[in-house]
Amino acid sequence: MNPTIELLKSHRSIRKFTDQAVSTEQVREIVSAGQTAATSSNVQAVTVIQVNSSATRDSIAELAGGQAWVSNAGAFLVWCADLKRSGAACARAGGEFEQGMTEHFLIATIDVALAAQNAVIAAESLGLGICYIGGLRNNPAKVTELLQLPEQVYPVFGLCLGYPAQDPEIKPRLSVDAVLMQDAYTDEQQDTHFDDYNERLGHYYQTRTGGTKVSQWTDEMKKLVGKESRPHMRGFLDKQGFKMR
Amino acid sequence: MNPTIELLKSHRSIRKFTDQAVSTEQVREIVSAGQTAATSSNVQAVTVIQVNSSATRDSIAELAGGQAWVSNAGAFLVWCADLKRSGAACARAGGEFEQGMTEHFLIATIDVALAAQNAVIAAESLGLGICYIGGLRNNPAKVTELLQLPEQVYPVFGLCLGYPAQDPEIKPRLSVDAVLMQDAYTDEQQDTHFDDYNERLGHYYQTRTGGTKVSQWTDEMKKLVGKESRPHMRGFLDKQGFKMR
Repeated sequence: MNPTIELLKSHRSIRKFTDQAVSTEQVREIVSAGQTAATSSNVQAVTVIQVNSSATRDSIAELAGGQAWVSNAGAFLVWCADLKRSGAACARAGGEFEQGMTEHFLIATIDVALAAQNAVIAAESLGLGICYIGGLRNNPAKVTELLQLPEQVYPVFGLCLGYPAQDPEIKPRLSVDAVLMQDAYTDEQQDTHFDDYNERLGHYYQTRTGGTKVSQWTDEMKKLVGKESRPHMRGFLDKQGFKMR
Repeated sequence: MNPTIELLKSHRSIRKFTDQAVSTEQVREIVSAGQTAATSSNVQAVTVIQVNSSATRDSIAELAGGQAWVSNAGAFLVWCADLKRSGAACARAGGEFEQGMTEHFLIATIDVALAAQNAVIAAESLGLGICYIGGLRNNPAKVTELLQLPEQVYPVFGLCLGYPAQDPEIKPRLSVDAVLMQDAYTDEQQDTHFDDYNERLGHYYQTRTGGTKVSQWTDEMKKLVGKESRPHMRGFLDKQGFKMR
């Protein structure tokens, strides 16, 4: 294990930050490290909006379900999938933007995630802690309005950056044997993997919460995929120009 | 700039590999480094299929548009978005998997990209070169058949890993000023950014190809978004159980 892999393996979300500022230079360095990630057909469909306005950050913190760290972090970035820029570039070259393709939506969304994860690694290498904020998809229309996002742009997730004021344990993951397969899909050993992971995750929650939170992964998945989740997303994306055809 | 950021900024896709093998231990280390990335609500919707079969690799190389490096790389991984596992976990906890939500599709796809990018950084830190293969979405139904992917699982992209047998230049990106905005979306300076990037990218292509390839970013975007792209994707995803409702 080299220092980079050690850094990757030491990741945990940070939700309490010191007052120490994250400088403009640091944010530029982090975002430009993000840009160096691979990008599908060089589309670079990424726009990052740094939110400085306290009012906007408070609104997003609230609509994300009361995530105070959106307000308190040293910096808060909203990562957007942006096909408007590609469309404008296409027009400059005399073409006409073919809107609404599922494939274009996919490459833009994947581009954003690859770039953001690179940026996260850069931030963590600088001693910062991070927390992704998927919760802004609770009300993406409101976020779109606050940040004045045009059509063909949508907010994928937020990202808090700051100096950690907590040192939480690393959350265990599914066994690598549960996710790495050879030549073909198989889930034959799945129950064994579930048992193993339920036990390890249960232990983690017990240690972390002093025994008050008793939750297993299978329960977490029931909560997550055992009901409708953000049923507004399809309509929101459609309205924003991502027709998924 | 620290060594990690230096590593991130030295990325370029590698498409020629030496014969040196990538070991099973390395692949496990790389995939498990991938697993440490953030995951939405702990869903861990990632399955990685390492393809060892030459016949399967040749088929994917061909359907991806003749990408020989899929066959030749030290290792070839297909990164899949997997909600079947979460659905099974949900059932174990007595729930019923609510299929077809756009939001679940999104979190699974984003999870895969975050994990893959972490894995890529781990691989590059070990001295390996990588190349993402989005081209397997040229015929995702065939890839699904080859890898026996069940419903609620789809192949997002492939990933070649191996020891580099080439040392290409780093491809320039859009200026950080073109992608990083403050508080609200703006594209006022867009034409300036396009001019700047067209020039830098044109220079890169000229240097790399000895003057034979003359292409600008705006032309590339016309080719990419100025026409339909993989129009089969919507139908494929629908059939695979991702209804996008």
